[in-house]
Amino acid sequence: MYFDKLKLHYPTPMKTTRRDWVRAAGVAGAVSVVPAKAGTPKAEPSAAALLEVFAKRQSVRKYKSDPVPDEHVRMILDAARRAPTCMNEQPWKFLVVRKKETIERMRKQTVEMITKVVDGRLAHQLNVSQKDLDNRNEAIARTEGYFTAPVYVVVLVDKECQCGVEYMKQDGTLAAGYLMLAARALGYGTVYLTDGVPEQVSREVLNIPPRYQRICMTPIGVPDPWPPMKAKKKLEELIAYEQIT
Amino acid sequence: MYFDKLKLHYPTPMKTTRRDWVRAAGVAGAVSVVPAKAGTPKAEPSAAALLEVFAKRQSVRKYKSDPVPDEHVRMILDAARRAPTCMNEQPWKFLVVRKKETIERMRKQTVEMITKVVDGRLAHQLNVSQKDLDNRNEAIARTEGYFTAPVYVVVLVDKECQCGVEYMKQDGTLAAGYLMLAARALGYGTVYLTDGVPEQVSREVLNIPPRYQRICMTPIGVPDPWPPMKAKKKLEELIAYEQIT
Repeated sequence: MYFDKLKLHYPTPMKTTRRDWVRAAGVAGAVSVVPAKAGTPKAEPSAAALLEVFAKRQSVRKYKSDPVPDEHVRMILDAARRAPTCMNEQPWKFLVVRKKETIERMRKQTVEMITKVVDGRLAHQLNVSQKDLDNRNEAIARTEGYFTAPVYVVVLVDKECQCGVEYMKQDGTLAAGYLMLAARALGYGTVYLTDGVPEQVSREVLNIPPRYQRICMTPIGVPDPWPPMKAKKKLEELIAYEQIT
Repeated sequence: MYFDKLKLHYPTPMKTTRRDWVRAAGVAGAVSVVPAKAGTPKAEPSAAALLEVFAKRQSVRKYKSDPVPDEHVRMILDAARRAPTCMNEQPWKFLVVRKKETIERMRKQTVEMITKVVDGRLAHQLNVSQKDLDNRNEAIARTEGYFTAPVYVVVLVDKECQCGVEYMKQDGTLAAGYLMLAARALGYGTVYLTDGVPEQVSREVLNIPPRYQRICMTPIGVPDPWPPMKAKKKLEELIAYEQIT
């Protein structure tokens, strides 16, 4: 585990309080540390455990029917709204959907649209292989899976905000990302849905006013099951120091 | 504190292990809980502490010169790269800048550009008040403050990725948001800089190839000091249930 490698090296130790030791231990876990001196950052006591949650977040495409208490939804959105936001405008609207008949209407319309698109593509192919058919069915099954959760959040932004469209979209995206991480901390899965559930479907079924632009929508639920973690690029591939060579 | 209100209500308690209790206690802190049954979400032990970190993240515009160990930068970027990403493409490049002369060149060029813009605006005003001049000086001082940190990360995305420009921008924004939260967990401040440091400046000074698009850049450092928390909208204003009324 990456955190095992962490060593905190602080310059000359100064007046040390018990709090300094606790604080340092909080970052480094069981790793030996020297105490923080004045001016060094005050890491959160659970920083190492916290950072592990980032690595555990993943896209979940099928859910159990177990309920998600409203208090959890609110805790998740309370985290989402702490995202960076241009000029502190917070142009967000989180539309929470729980009603079974509404979810069912979104599912039905989405499956119809996805099926139409996929079948339309196949109709223009000269040869349709078994693999093509398997892929078709898989796409439909995946779409069905999106609608197995007990609760959905549509992340919207207010087009009347002052910062302009680019900032507005960034604000919305940042809040959606925070939402997903907070949900993971509480043990729930999410998935960042854009084209997977056409905007038109959510706008019509949920009667979303034109003033609001959808950034994405996501189920929140207990995964059925947690999927295997996807292979990721190594950190080395993504970092450059001083310049890109 | 919001978390104090948390009560976890699970249906019929089933076979309970010590782990279930620890897990439940982890979410609820000191709040009384009933143990989790099979199928309920497995919250991270540090969930409550983690969710508090979201509320502590804020934009920081002046930094102490205290160094940020490279291990911390790597932990922060290791969290950033776990952001949701279209088709698992991970089109990110995190350009880390520490060299003092490079930072100084960015500072100088940015201050010159900002000064030129602000003074240009003032030159077209009929009356320039003391308040206008104060605002001018404040804008320049804020820009100077951006360059007081020991390390910078420019968050870039690869334009050659397959998912298209909209997804690419979302991927970049999501990673930048995760970066800032992870930095906060370790006790560091950040600020999501876009127009505050013109893209042209970072591109020229850092010699960024045209293949990469900048999403934002951020200092990472110990705040000097942590600014007061900005007033935020109430959660109620941001949530809608079932439909927007």
